[in-house]
Amino acid sequence: MSNRYEMRFAGSGGQGVILASVIIAEAAVISGVKAVQSQAYGPEARGGVSKAETVISRDQIWYSKVTKPNFLLALTQASLDKYSTELAEGAIVMMDDSLKAPEYLDAARVISIPILETAKTKVGKAFTANIVAVGAINRALQLFEGKELMEGVKRHIPAGTEEINEKALNEGAALISDKQAAAFKQSIG
Amino acid sequence: MSNRYEMRFAGSGGQGVILASVIIAEAAVISGVKAVQSQAYGPEARGGVSKAETVISRDQIWYSKVTKPNFLLALTQASLDKYSTELAEGAIVMMDDSLKAPEYLDAARVISIPILETAKTKVGKAFTANIVAVGAINRALQLFEGKELMEGVKRHIPAGTEEINEKALNEGAALISDKQAAAFKQSIG
Repeated sequence: MSNRYEMRFAGSGGQGVILASVIIAEAAVISGVKAVQSQAYGPEARGGVSKAETVISRDQIWYSKVTKPNFLLALTQASLDKYSTELAEGAIVMMDDSLKAPEYLDAARVISIPILETAKTKVGKAFTANIVAVGAINRALQLFEGKELMEGVKRHIPAGTEEINEKALNEGAALISDKQAAAFKQSIG
Repeated sequence: MSNRYEMRFAGSGGQGVILASVIIAEAAVISGVKAVQSQAYGPEARGGVSKAETVISRDQIWYSKVTKPNFLLALTQASLDKYSTELAEGAIVMMDDSLKAPEYLDAARVISIPILETAKTKVGKAFTANIVAVGAINRALQLFEGKELMEGVKRHIPAGTEEINEKALNEGAALISDKQAAAFKQSIG
């Protein structure tokens, strides 16, 4: 893997993909690597597709835009269809399992899991889907220590919601099997 | 005013200052000017202070960091104390009226309004404080058309929450008097 790891988080407006992207960037910095986080505004955000990006690197990051993501999270069909065409070679795609993966994607690099359903039923709050996704991402890619990730989460959630968000992280992690975690592990930097 | 308008949004983690910053940037782009939005990660975010920044400009923005804000929103005493020392000349400070303004601030440039209380009692949801603030900011500075701002909000809130967020925007705007709106009007770009 190259030193620079580009991640894109996509869904519909209001699903909290920006916060997911922010938390991953925060956890990266807490863990001792560099990160920048950004999102597009204006025309790109039309059609109800919301997109946020995090770049992680051990070195200084001079260019903050994501051009060839190494990782894509997609929570809606529109966002999956739109962004799955612009991936780096060997990129990993994590998608909600209610979506249909485009045929051109390498099935071996697709992680299809019930993110939205888990948030709604197991965590009990649909709005935690973004945090469920963050938990699953971290378990699959093995980016950060659990405490680093939780600290990243805590810096960006309302006081008093730590418990439900920790539950969301854990339920997200539980969606990933040991085999998947072994297969998709990344070493950033 | 210079062409470049720097805005800083500060509060405690989880008060949604990043989203406030994102929405202002989105509305700026919808209204036809340029904007970049960013936030600090890591050590700067320690101590429970969360900070986000938006730069608005008619011209290309080459430097996305905020160094001398023209506008500061502060929702907690810690964030007000920390960031009110780093302002551009003539900067406007909007603060929750539960806070104590440092004596070195020019009282004529301070807008002290009940943002948190309005969210809690008038809108009925404490978590809308960031949107109440956005409504107040836009009314005070007269940055964007109401429909541009609401479109910016809609792109970043969960589906089904349009009504309460529109109420939050309106209640926020209602905190600003005609006199204040006349006094603090900015012309961006």
